Amino acid sequence: MTVELASADAQPINVHARLDAYCAANTFDQPTLVLDVDLVEQQYHALKEGLGYADIHYAVKANPAEEIIARLVKLGSHFDAASKAEVALCLKHGADPAHVSFGNTVKRSSDIAWAHAQGITLFSADAEQELEKIAISAPGAQVYIRLIVEISQADWPLSRKFGCDSATAIRLLSYAKSLGLDPIGFSFHVGSQTRKAAMWGPSLDALAEIWHAAKAAGHELTLLNIGGGFPAFYGETIEAPTDYASAVMEQIISRFGKVPRIMAEPGRGLVAEAGVIVSEVLLVSRKSDRDMHRWVYLDIGRFSGLAETEGEAIRYQFETPRDGDPVGPCIMAGPSCDSADVLYEKRPMLLPISLRAGDRVLIRNTGAYTSTYSSVCFNGFPPLAVVVI
Amino acid sequence: MTVELASADAQPINVHARLDAYCAANTFDQPTLVLDVDLVEQQYHALKEGLGYADIHYAVKANPAEEIIARLVKLGSHFDAASKAEVALCLKHGADPAHVSFGNTVKRSSDIAWAHAQGITLFSADAEQELEKIAISAPGAQVYIRLIVEISQADWPLSRKFGCDSATAIRLLSYAKSLGLDPIGFSFHVGSQTRKAAMWGPSLDALAEIWHAAKAAGHELTLLNIGGGFPAFYGETIEAPTDYASAVMEQIISRFGKVPRIMAEPGRGLVAEAGVIVSEVLLVSRKSDRDMHRWVYLDIGRFSGLAETEGEAIRYQFETPRDGDPVGPCIMAGPSCDSADVLYEKRPMLLPISLRAGDRVLIRNTGAYTSTYSSVCFNGFPPLAVVVI
Repeated sequence: MTVELASADAQPINVHARLDAYCAANTFDQPTLVLDVDLVEQQYHALKEGLGYADIHYAVKANPAEEIIARLVKLGSHFDAASKAEVALCLKHGADPAHVSFGNTVKRSSDIAWAHAQGITLFSADAEQELEKIAISAPGAQVYIRLIVEISQADWPLSRKFGCDSATAIRLLSYAKSLGLDPIGFSFHVGSQTRKAAMWGPSLDALAEIWHAAKAAGHELTLLNIGGGFPAFYGETIEAPTDYASAVMEQIISRFGKVPRIMAEPGRGLVAEAGVIVSEVLLVSRKSDRDMHRWVYLDIGRFSGLAETEGEAIRYQFETPRDGDPVGPCIMAGPSCDSADVLYEKRPMLLPISLRAGDRVLIRNTGAYTSTYSSVCFNGFPPLAVVVI
Repeated sequence: MTVELASADAQPINVHARLDAYCAANTFDQPTLVLDVDLVEQQYHALKEGLGYADIHYAVKANPAEEIIARLVKLGSHFDAASKAEVALCLKHGADPAHVSFGNTVKRSSDIAWAHAQGITLFSADAEQELEKIAISAPGAQVYIRLIVEISQADWPLSRKFGCDSATAIRLLSYAKSLGLDPIGFSFHVGSQTRKAAMWGPSLDALAEIWHAAKAAGHELTLLNIGGGFPAFYGETIEAPTDYASAVMEQIISRFGKVPRIMAEPGRGLVAEAGVIVSEVLLVSRKSDRDMHRWVYLDIGRFSGLAETEGEAIRYQFETPRDGDPVGPCIMAGPSCDSADVLYEKRPMLLPISLRAGDRVLIRNTGAYTSTYSSVCFNGFPPLAVVVI
């Protein structure tokens, strides 16, 4: 509960000094995400240094704040868009359509056609019907096939919903060609928040096997999309961004050689540490005299920005003005009348015993997957406010 | 997958005829909830008939559509508000402040003060700090204490987050009095979507024990708030609304006698069956040749309105233009790039084998807990659109 550095090997200064100064100088009448876009820029350079010739396609879904997109366009970043609106956002800020990939494997036909008309040339697919939609709505487009890689050590694994198995993938390459499309490679996703570069090994082994089988079957592959997985600091040690990225690239080169084009899609790993949520304690209570734990209710919950606490998957870092006082275990919950709006219960959080209603709580490294998850007005609460400094 | 009646004993006509006609006559370029506010009125009368002298406090959080609130004010309904915004909404449409309960046990002090200034006189609490906030911000206000009732047979149980145990509750009555507040009774919640009136029995037994203990301890109790739990039809048989409500009231009278004031807070049970979501199939696929199930991806998912499919708790009814064709098991998922955005996987849905991208899908009885849960723009998708007819 002290100020933590962005990652284990970061320089010994408080990288959050600007965020802290802004939070200290302002009052907030609702939960607010404060973003330091300079920290996004720093992280972009750090990742880019490790990734070498691979293109960074920022996963816009992690945080589509206009200022983040504008800054990344200026830095030469490419983009991974999940929808028509995300494609439009990138183009609005001057991204080259050739640098925007439409990476959702599930797209509406009319959105494909719209994107194609804007000059988007690269689409993902993992199924025959998707290829058929692309062939009709974006004839001749480049496509990559998303693979299921079931071996994952990520904190938020992504194994089931997206991708197809190796036999299906190789068949889809041929099918794409028969539809007049240009199938150029594969994508996969190691899983969000993969904390150590070494955890990529087993997935890359599985991927390499399919890659070489496809080449042996006569397919010319020029694109490897390694997806995201780049981690943020949530309390458990992670490797510094440049070291992490270069260790991932070394593992790729050793298995695939010099692939003409490599795409990496950091989202969380690029923006999470650039944000802090300012929230407030609404209530501290015990349900009975026998309760071992207190309940701490914040003014933000699963339906107003902290969706990734589902299953207690992402364990945020909390700071309070009473840090340093003796601590005790707390179940943490959001403010809504929904009993599913509980943040941490199976593994309670240690918080100061002196904590009480009205206290400010800072939630660190919340720049990714918070603002856009928040509901429009569940229980009448407004969506998470966002301020970019 | 045929048109279902609103509940088992409903009259043998299609109560959804107006909704069906509207959907058939229109095209929709995004997922849209269509609400028939006349059906809300019918259901209000049906419940009110069974509930007798108990006041209906509509749980605004279930669906805060302006037209629903306006119609219910006209019918003489009272309201249960979860937040300042919900209180404001009710007052805007002409609700008497004396008929609006601020029922969230976790309130911001400034919101309590604001509500008090608007004339709200009734607040809930389950903890000392909450009573202290109410005593400061709404001096002299009426309060009821929420109890934990751990015995529930609801489909979406609510046992842990809200309420306190009996010893704490009785102590809170005394504490409220010492703070100058007017503690008038208890509330509890049997759990959302409690399908049969008989399922209330064990919870009411537990509640009656506490009620009589508090009276024996010298507390004058004039209010019993029985919360919600009134069910909607999601495929499993439920009792008709009047029969259900009167069976609940009979169980209350037999245990508590003639309590001066009874509040019931239907949300789902009042509005769910008045709504249908129009959605579209984006993709049907198989992950491998060995897959037993197809994957069906809709343009709506857990983060754009179907949050209650979490844990597959609420099992919606789907209608397609291909109903009647042979069916097969499907895993159903939403359109976002989030692997947690899966609707039904453990218990796959049976859908027509002929189903394909572009097909319209109607999702029945989705008038409650859909529109407000939807995220502001997760993955760039707009929130669920709402049309009231």
